Amino acid sequence: MNELDSVRPIRWSREGLFLLDQRLLPGRCVELQCTSAADVATAIRDMVVRGAPAIGIAAAFGVVLAVRSRYRENPDNWRNSIAVDVELLAASRPTAVNLFWALKRMAALTVTEGEDPVPRFEAEAKAIHNEDIAANHRMGELGAALISEPCNMLTHCNAGALATGGYGTALGVIRSAFATGKLQQIYADETRPWLQGARLTAWELAEDGIPTRLIADGAAAYLMQCGMIRWVVVGSDRIAANGDVANKIGTYGLAVNAHHHGVGFMVVAPTSTIDMSIVSGAEIPIEERTTDELLNFQGVSIAPKEGTAWNPVFDVTPAALVDVLVTERGVVHTPDREKLSNLMAHTR
Amino acid sequence: MNELDSVRPIRWSREGLFLLDQRLLPGRCVELQCTSAADVATAIRDMVVRGAPAIGIAAAFGVVLAVRSRYRENPDNWRNSIAVDVELLAASRPTAVNLFWALKRMAALTVTEGEDPVPRFEAEAKAIHNEDIAANHRMGELGAALISEPCNMLTHCNAGALATGGYGTALGVIRSAFATGKLQQIYADETRPWLQGARLTAWELAEDGIPTRLIADGAAAYLMQCGMIRWVVVGSDRIAANGDVANKIGTYGLAVNAHHHGVGFMVVAPTSTIDMSIVSGAEIPIEERTTDELLNFQGVSIAPKEGTAWNPVFDVTPAALVDVLVTERGVVHTPDREKLSNLMAHTR
Repeated sequence: MNELDSVRPIRWSREGLFLLDQRLLPGRCVELQCTSAADVATAIRDMVVRGAPAIGIAAAFGVVLAVRSRYRENPDNWRNSIAVDVELLAASRPTAVNLFWALKRMAALTVTEGEDPVPRFEAEAKAIHNEDIAANHRMGELGAALISEPCNMLTHCNAGALATGGYGTALGVIRSAFATGKLQQIYADETRPWLQGARLTAWELAEDGIPTRLIADGAAAYLMQCGMIRWVVVGSDRIAANGDVANKIGTYGLAVNAHHHGVGFMVVAPTSTIDMSIVSGAEIPIEERTTDELLNFQGVSIAPKEGTAWNPVFDVTPAALVDVLVTERGVVHTPDREKLSNLMAHTR
Repeated sequence: MNELDSVRPIRWSREGLFLLDQRLLPGRCVELQCTSAADVATAIRDMVVRGAPAIGIAAAFGVVLAVRSRYRENPDNWRNSIAVDVELLAASRPTAVNLFWALKRMAALTVTEGEDPVPRFEAEAKAIHNEDIAANHRMGELGAALISEPCNMLTHCNAGALATGGYGTALGVIRSAFATGKLQQIYADETRPWLQGARLTAWELAEDGIPTRLIADGAAAYLMQCGMIRWVVVGSDRIAANGDVANKIGTYGLAVNAHHHGVGFMVVAPTSTIDMSIVSGAEIPIEERTTDELLNFQGVSIAPKEGTAWNPVFDVTPAALVDVLVTERGVVHTPDREKLSNLMAHTR
């Protein structure tokens, strides 16, 4: 762990899974303890933990908690019993595919008849966590290498240490770019309604001493028009087989503007985010969250009482607007079906 | 005043100028009394009253208050004395040209030697106010006539009754479209950081019973991608001689997206917003406001304490992205230097 990698949102111990409560940042740094799969599912649903890779890791540890509990209850039937826990975890959020990828990987574990399954599941969840951090460092290197000279970059939402096992996807590239002198200034969209940019990205980059300037989401296009941005760098919650990218609401409008201004658009995501089972982004379920996120702020009403709102929290950027996709297996320029198919055909 | 025109932000009486305090909406409807030009300048600077035409009207009444006070002080030298008040008003905000237009019109008033100037100035300020309301009704008709069939529209910021003498520019078109069955649903960008869309647009349209749905600024492009929007309708703070349009930060990114999606982009502004003295939008001063608007919300910190931000509150949309400009003198399709020159050459 280098000095630009100080934030960890997920901690596993004998007492259970500890999640840095991202609802309370940046004002308070408090860990929430989860001792059951149901605790983890609730934490994911309520966005104690968020970000596609981090959701996957948390869910994997949720399965460990389920196995531990079910095996204690009934050592002969734990495998059947955990099905309901896995379903609960799977129902926590719909868009990020890393959740389903992690659950599938955990569910596929085989254990010798009569053997205590807990160590095996625990080791697998830890492996998912550690592999994610390693993937982020690798993507950081690969992404930073694409940046030819010191420049300003823009990011949206939080695809950082807080959204992953650590180091981050988009912010992993930002960290690596900063470490190698390629980053002059990172601009962070505040990312309404949940303010991931203001509350999380600005916070975790400040923790690592990376110069960050917060802007309103609406200022991003003006920033590009002023020639102040060379790259937009974002994460993803799910990438379809054709390269369409689901990410936090607002990403698509940024991609259109990046294209209009000749600004590079880089998506950084581990291959666990790529969903080869769907042919295009049209098949990605787009979560809509409570309109309360728009109508109220920390209990204060910011819209008329009779107000109605629409709160889709993801959008889909067509592959045609993506200049480069950075994964831990390599870089894909102008991603399409064939290139992703080749990428995913590599053995791990 | 028809039933879709119930909101008035500016009220003049013998006791002074009463401004509906827009900082407190939608939670509280409170009028702030201004009894001096300095009061009015402060109210404009602090956004008690905002919106280009409303700023112009308020400033005109500010001059009336100055004349009243200075004439009482010294009936022989009031004309020289008000210069400092006019300067104070002119320094309140930089971008909206209606402010300077109104001050110039007021300063140009001639009064017979020895005559009490107050009635003449008061009548002129009232005329500016009433002309603005009439212009908005006319623009409402002209703009609504451009909408060929019932559809959904999107607006940004607040170019409504609250931003004008009454009825609104962009929201005047929305009101007229609603009255004539052309509006199915209006979507309102919440418009960070000041939340004019959430706090003002959603409120004033609710007051008039117009169906409004609030969205995060970042959701606008997705809405267009889903085919849910036919027209983007916005106001303006200053239009250059070549048709470049300054408006609330975020407008430019919307215009790029509207163009990308084949969605109509309509700007609605009285001719007092057109500044023929500047050749292009590059000459329009873009106000930057306190970063506190991004770093805090109602006294609650929403970003790390060491956080820095950039808060430009306007941007400039090139004329090439404007499909139609609606003014009280008529409609200009794909505005350019020649068309605006012809429009402004008409006598009032």
